[in-house]
Amino acid sequence: MTAQLSKKSEAWSARFSEPVSDLVKRYTASVFFDKRLAPFDIQGSLAHAEMLAAQGIISAQDHADIQRGMAQIESEIAAGKFEWLLDLEDVHLNIEKRLTELVGDAGKRLHTGRSRNDQVATDIRLYMRAAIDDIVILLRDLRLALLDLAEKHADTILPGFTHMQVAQPVTFGHHMLAYVEMFNRDAERMADCRKRVNRLPLGAAALAGTTFPIDRERVARTLGFEDVCRNSLDAVSDRDFAIEFCAAAALVMTHVSRMSEELVIWMSPRVGFIDIADRFCTGSSIMPQKKNPDVPELARGKTGRVNGHLIALLTLMKGQPLAYNKDNQEDKEPLFDTVDTVTDTLRIFADMAGGITVKPDAMRKAALQGYATATDLADYLVKKGLPFRDAHEAVAHAVRHCETKGCDLSDLSLDEMQRFSPLIDADVAEVLTLEGSVAARDHIGGTAPSQVRAAIAYLRSRIA
Amino acid sequence: MTAQLSKKSEAWSARFSEPVSDLVKRYTASVFFDKRLAPFDIQGSLAHAEMLAAQGIISAQDHADIQRGMAQIESEIAAGKFEWLLDLEDVHLNIEKRLTELVGDAGKRLHTGRSRNDQVATDIRLYMRAAIDDIVILLRDLRLALLDLAEKHADTILPGFTHMQVAQPVTFGHHMLAYVEMFNRDAERMADCRKRVNRLPLGAAALAGTTFPIDRERVARTLGFEDVCRNSLDAVSDRDFAIEFCAAAALVMTHVSRMSEELVIWMSPRVGFIDIADRFCTGSSIMPQKKNPDVPELARGKTGRVNGHLIALLTLMKGQPLAYNKDNQEDKEPLFDTVDTVTDTLRIFADMAGGITVKPDAMRKAALQGYATATDLADYLVKKGLPFRDAHEAVAHAVRHCETKGCDLSDLSLDEMQRFSPLIDADVAEVLTLEGSVAARDHIGGTAPSQVRAAIAYLRSRIA
Amino acid sequence: MTAQLSKKSEAWSARFSEPVSDLVKRYTASVFFDKRLAPFDIQGSLAHAEMLAAQGIISAQDHADIQRGMAQIESEIAAGKFEWLLDLEDVHLNIEKRLTELVGDAGKRLHTGRSRNDQVATDIRLYMRAAIDDIVILLRDLRLALLDLAEKHADTILPGFTHMQVAQPVTFGHHMLAYVEMFNRDAERMADCRKRVNRLPLGAAALAGTTFPIDRERVARTLGFEDVCRNSLDAVSDRDFAIEFCAAAALVMTHVSRMSEELVIWMSPRVGFIDIADRFCTGSSIMPQKKNPDVPELARGKTGRVNGHLIALLTLMKGQPLAYNKDNQEDKEPLFDTVDTVTDTLRIFADMAGGITVKPDAMRKAALQGYATATDLADYLVKKGLPFRDAHEAVAHAVRHCETKGCDLSDLSLDEMQRFSPLIDADVAEVLTLEGSVAARDHIGGTAPSQVRAAIAYLRSRIA
Amino acid sequence: MTAQLSKKSEAWSARFSEPVSDLVKRYTASVFFDKRLAPFDIQGSLAHAEMLAAQGIISAQDHADIQRGMAQIESEIAAGKFEWLLDLEDVHLNIEKRLTELVGDAGKRLHTGRSRNDQVATDIRLYMRAAIDDIVILLRDLRLALLDLAEKHADTILPGFTHMQVAQPVTFGHHMLAYVEMFNRDAERMADCRKRVNRLPLGAAALAGTTFPIDRERVARTLGFEDVCRNSLDAVSDRDFAIEFCAAAALVMTHVSRMSEELVIWMSPRVGFIDIADRFCTGSSIMPQKKNPDVPELARGKTGRVNGHLIALLTLMKGQPLAYNKDNQEDKEPLFDTVDTVTDTLRIFADMAGGITVKPDAMRKAALQGYATATDLADYLVKKGLPFRDAHEAVAHAVRHCETKGCDLSDLSLDEMQRFSPLIDADVAEVLTLEGSVAARDHIGGTAPSQVRAAIAYLRSRIA
Repeated sequence: MTAQLSKKSEAWSARFSEPVSDLVKRYTASVFFDKRLAPFDIQGSLAHAEMLAAQGIISAQDHADIQRGMAQIESEIAAGKFEWLLDLEDVHLNIEKRLTELVGDAGKRLHTGRSRNDQVATDIRLYMRAAIDDIVILLRDLRLALLDLAEKHADTILPGFTHMQVAQPVTFGHHMLAYVEMFNRDAERMADCRKRVNRLPLGAAALAGTTFPIDRERVARTLGFEDVCRNSLDAVSDRDFAIEFCAAAALVMTHVSRMSEELVIWMSPRVGFIDIADRFCTGSSIMPQKKNPDVPELARGKTGRVNGHLIALLTLMKGQPLAYNKDNQEDKEPLFDTVDTVTDTLRIFADMAGGITVKPDAMRKAALQGYATATDLADYLVKKGLPFRDAHEAVAHAVRHCETKGCDLSDLSLDEMQRFSPLIDADVAEVLTLEGSVAARDHIGGTAPSQVRAAIAYLRSRIA
Repeated sequence: MTAQLSKKSEAWSARFSEPVSDLVKRYTASVFFDKRLAPFDIQGSLAHAEMLAAQGIISAQDHADIQRGMAQIESEIAAGKFEWLLDLEDVHLNIEKRLTELVGDAGKRLHTGRSRNDQVATDIRLYMRAAIDDIVILLRDLRLALLDLAEKHADTILPGFTHMQVAQPVTFGHHMLAYVEMFNRDAERMADCRKRVNRLPLGAAALAGTTFPIDRERVARTLGFEDVCRNSLDAVSDRDFAIEFCAAAALVMTHVSRMSEELVIWMSPRVGFIDIADRFCTGSSIMPQKKNPDVPELARGKTGRVNGHLIALLTLMKGQPLAYNKDNQEDKEPLFDTVDTVTDTLRIFADMAGGITVKPDAMRKAALQGYATATDLADYLVKKGLPFRDAHEAVAHAVRHCETKGCDLSDLSLDEMQRFSPLIDADVAEVLTLEGSVAARDHIGGTAPSQVRAAIAYLRSRIA
Repeated sequence: MTAQLSKKSEAWSARFSEPVSDLVKRYTASVFFDKRLAPFDIQGSLAHAEMLAAQGIISAQDHADIQRGMAQIESEIAAGKFEWLLDLEDVHLNIEKRLTELVGDAGKRLHTGRSRNDQVATDIRLYMRAAIDDIVILLRDLRLALLDLAEKHADTILPGFTHMQVAQPVTFGHHMLAYVEMFNRDAERMADCRKRVNRLPLGAAALAGTTFPIDRERVARTLGFEDVCRNSLDAVSDRDFAIEFCAAAALVMTHVSRMSEELVIWMSPRVGFIDIADRFCTGSSIMPQKKNPDVPELARGKTGRVNGHLIALLTLMKGQPLAYNKDNQEDKEPLFDTVDTVTDTLRIFADMAGGITVKPDAMRKAALQGYATATDLADYLVKKGLPFRDAHEAVAHAVRHCETKGCDLSDLSLDEMQRFSPLIDADVAEVLTLEGSVAARDHIGGTAPSQVRAAIAYLRSRIA
Repeated sequence: MTAQLSKKSEAWSARFSEPVSDLVKRYTASVFFDKRLAPFDIQGSLAHAEMLAAQGIISAQDHADIQRGMAQIESEIAAGKFEWLLDLEDVHLNIEKRLTELVGDAGKRLHTGRSRNDQVATDIRLYMRAAIDDIVILLRDLRLALLDLAEKHADTILPGFTHMQVAQPVTFGHHMLAYVEMFNRDAERMADCRKRVNRLPLGAAALAGTTFPIDRERVARTLGFEDVCRNSLDAVSDRDFAIEFCAAAALVMTHVSRMSEELVIWMSPRVGFIDIADRFCTGSSIMPQKKNPDVPELARGKTGRVNGHLIALLTLMKGQPLAYNKDNQEDKEPLFDTVDTVTDTLRIFADMAGGITVKPDAMRKAALQGYATATDLADYLVKKGLPFRDAHEAVAHAVRHCETKGCDLSDLSLDEMQRFSPLIDADVAEVLTLEGSVAARDHIGGTAPSQVRAAIAYLRSRIA
């Protein structure tokens, strides 16, 4: 009877009069990508068997046989000796068939009270939970690396840009903290997503539950699930968690793409704010002088891949009637590739953060260009009593005058300045310095070095 | 000096030598879609002014003037008498300019310590928070309507389908609860998203904070925000919350699309499981006999729109350098349309749930076709001692025999059945009934009517 | 000097002070997916070398050496003996390094006058052209299979549906021709896309062209390109053709998804219009009676994958400055998977078309239900002189009467019918038959069997 | 009888027992966005009526009445006096009802032999054809403007970048021609799409054709369609052309986004390659010195919108069974907004091209930085006999030496240079100049000014 499962089509062979063609086998098989679920499939099966035995649905002997067989399969897989067969279609049938070879009837009893529909849903959730836990750690590592970089440059001034035009001076530490905030939110979203991943579908069987006296809460406890999926039709057809995860991953990659864009621009020779360590760069096959920021460019490009996977899954689920349809087999590849992409990217970025060399002189020089302290002058006038809109107007006139003259605001004599507003006095000088400007933005979230240092301390305490 | 803002380009006019062309004005203006933010813009400005006064940055008189002016503007808008000017570009400048017309210098002082960058971010968050609160209520209404429908049909049996093939009998109540689970998760996601929406960007000013001694926590408290955005660069450039909302909305619409697909199929004459009240249907311009389920079809189609908006926003943010760029103006239309689509669709579905007439006879007839209780027979054999895989094989042979004969399993004589397994006995009869089948799936999440009723009670308590 | 390229990083090693880390190598390498370009890379290199020799840029001996080396490499790859090295990053450096091992300095001269930027662009275009040619043949095979099926059922009547409600009778042949039309358009779009693929980027070098006296038209002729890319910056950065191809592929899959949806519904027992051969179906691990239409379901799901790849590529290119950026390495995997998906799906569908068994009795029975000939009655009244809108109204009253009575229009006596319009006469009977209805739609594009046969002949002549 | 159509629901009222609710009316109505189809609806109706009369299906008097009525409706719409009613749901019923008010029974006869399904498909195709024709003209205008700019700067040298690192010198004219190539391809794609838009669905009626003796070729000729849709089921359900158009539009916007990214970077003060005329820029509400390139930023952002609409339409059509479903009403808004976005953006870009001021000095200065002529040195060595890979290596050593020394290649003495290769001679000097470098790339597609001028002439002849 072991031969029963020796080809996957034989799992239902008695009902069929015609073998499945090779092309169809290849088209419908998933074993070559779903075998990464093997550890989770075994984990789930062991928890299921333990419950079946506890409930008296299978014997203690069967349970012991299943445990022994699974232990052997695990070691075969670990040793690369497990033979994955296309004919057995997927990871589940491959493992079950091998189990039956190893332990006989106990193997055939393992599938009692479950179906591949709830089994695969359980496997993916176990896989997703582990992936999320990895990603949360990597997000932590990246934030800690950025905090170190921020701390080193809590006083380093560069021009803050809006519309890629010089706006106001900020510190590089403050700029890095913007990314820490983004990756903070990513970690929050991953934690929220984990709650919905961490619910047990097993017990839903094909779609309606099972006639065996199963104990779903017991399985949930064994596997560390926080809850059970409370409707069997939903349990086997739900792929929300995969979509929610990909949406959260798309935001991670969006943040990575923004940081990458800045790194690439900052490393461009016309800007020259930073250098990235050679080990993250490559050269050119034809231009010997080139040093290209390959890692951030590639990471920026990988945003597309994750956005695409998100759309793939949303398209997949659109308009699907309940309960399980074969369409759902298409959930795995986008999900796996999303996990790999986010994981690799975060790991490399956490490492690369330490390989960024900041060039404070270039930053300072750039901040002195472009009237970065014009707003400070306007605020100065407001504090002297001018309504804000009038102050704004007066400074705009002063800037225009400087542009014509080809000088900066701080190059104007007091006399010249007073032509634009009689409220201007000698004390204006300090207001127009970069240090004065930065230090004056001294409130929660502001760019003052003291605020940046306080924020770093706060964030460190929150992460640890 | 009121003329200062009489055309938007004049907000920075002193700096510019050339007027903006009409085409450019139309291309870059947002007032025709962002005027829906007006109530939130006013709310935010009032909280800002209150803080400016409390901190002594503006006088009590200025504050009173601003309050008076805003009250008048609110009533003008409510009365449809407010004149929105394209020349003033957006909702913010339109309101500020009118305020200055009404109250003079106090109006010009309102913008002290803030910028349009943090102002618009605040407005959108206030808008989003209100929209989420509406959607959460509508999700509640829809679930309550579905629970009523489920309760009425806790015992009504229809065939459960996988792959659109008859799988096992389920109850219609159980089927409806699958959708309640989906909309439950949607409500959870909306609540999670709300946490990240409900943080105050105001005080970030243009990108670096402000030199005025502002009190951001005070403004946060006034506006009901749970936290302040802790980095000014991030505060003005962050649109995560809009993307996260659209992703959550895309899942709502995905669920709606699945339910719609089923309603359309169920109302198709070949299936005939339900009827939908006339008021949700339309006829044909040419075929006088038609009654078309327009509402579910259109809702299914609207899934595309929301998926599209999600992609629009992800594309928008991809690779944007910090801090604010004009690209971000494109965040509003997709967001507004997503809110409208989800809101209208949920409202109409909550109403339509009460307009669904179930046809139990057609459902029962369908459930009797397609060997829906074959799994029950396999489980029966397992309980008699056969390993599951062998039981599955035996039943497959019996089904094939029935197919050839053109009958159902329950039509076989005991003798005939025993040919497929000697373990079959007279007690098999009950196992093969629809009622026996559903009643036997008696565990959390199973389709047994008692479980369905327990689930309804649990869900009601959770929603209330 | 062969060692020069023995690790990819050494292609530019003299410029770098630090080796690339292993993680970075894995992250940035493409050889494990781009090695499928090997035959095209060799083809392109041979054409380039031939031109270099013809132009006197390399010697005839070098050319002969390169040809000899490439022949050996081709046979090594064919025999599975070629060693692909991660350290050499991509297919291009792997082949060039092996060439230099085999033929010495001639190998080092091959890269004269070109760059990896134009080389990779050329390789992908050669690959794409071959893929499109395959797909065009598969689209032809599928259409021919559908035409055979259509011909067999040019007279078989089933209900035509709009809104999944019975609308008017159509023939199954006519219905199949709708899909032939869709796949016709797909073939047109592939041909249009091929024109833009089939242009030669080689000669653009890194981005600006080369200082060697190359002859790009000669290379274009050798490789069968219809034109050369006429701007070097564009040539190396253009990925339009990949996006256009994916958009065309997304439409192919959209058509496949629509056909799949219908096959799945038609095979559902409540409808029962068709059966699909066992070899395209699978069973259930738990429900022994199941026969699931796996192939159309999976194909429907694969629509998501291709839509996703399209978005991946559009996101990738959004906002990329000229000329080449490393982001573009991300073009390959979505493209390759799109080609594989479309190719496999079309092949399996062309095969499956022959495995569809039509059940004319079930179709006829369904067509007799739902007042399918109501429009015919309205048309009849119009021909007797009633304005269309009044005829529509009269028939609507008759249908409502029938619904109440639980009968069909053809069940009404002449007397009863005349109550709804005195214009109705005995000759109405024929108008209300399915055959009469179908035969009466006798114009180009109409469902009359004669029109269906004429369309089949026309389409056969157009395809052949 | 005119009252018959006075509310949309009355078009099929006799069949319905319950009025449609107000929410449902709003949810399902399309008149507020599809009224822009009015001119095309009238055009299509007139061609249909002309054919009905020619075929004797309606009388000459009816035809004349319809013409008269439609003329009046056209003038009412033009004068803004036409009353659009939500109760009449869509543009088609609004116009038909008004026609019947104006001309009585002839109006009720207009719908003979057609259905809203083929009517709306015809209207959209007429609209699309006109939109494509507009876009093709705008693409022409934009290319002509870019050609003018390119011609003015055929000799202006700037650094060509790859990976945002200085690669090789190119001319600004050459750079602009890269965009001309992109917009050339866009025009080709629009023309290809037009072929598939320009086919007549009218005559397909609801889905099966009509029983009236219509002449579809006659209507096609009248309306300027090149062919008729050859299958009625396909004709009413096909929306390929809308998707194909949006895909082509997404590529237009992708090109716009790339150009915008460059314009924004080039206008950033650290780069300073160009200035954009004030009329395309805006200032800041808080920073008086700002001049922001709003138009290119916003255009870049609008890429997201069009990508989103493409996904909306693909999602919409996924898995839709034949023939017409209400889902399809969702095709219009994404399509209309895509047309508006592309049209406005191209118009503004064609205008803005003339408002770009190039700063040749800044470009030249940047080109002298970053070893832009290193490849020229390597090519020089190859021409002296060194294999390319060895030459590349030698130059890499020289560059590294210069970097350490802080000088450019051209700053090295001949002695110093010869240390890296004895093949270097005094004639190397010219090779290292910017002018020598660009002039040497003298082949089709190369950046040599003579090639740029030849390309401009070729492109002008091709466009005109």
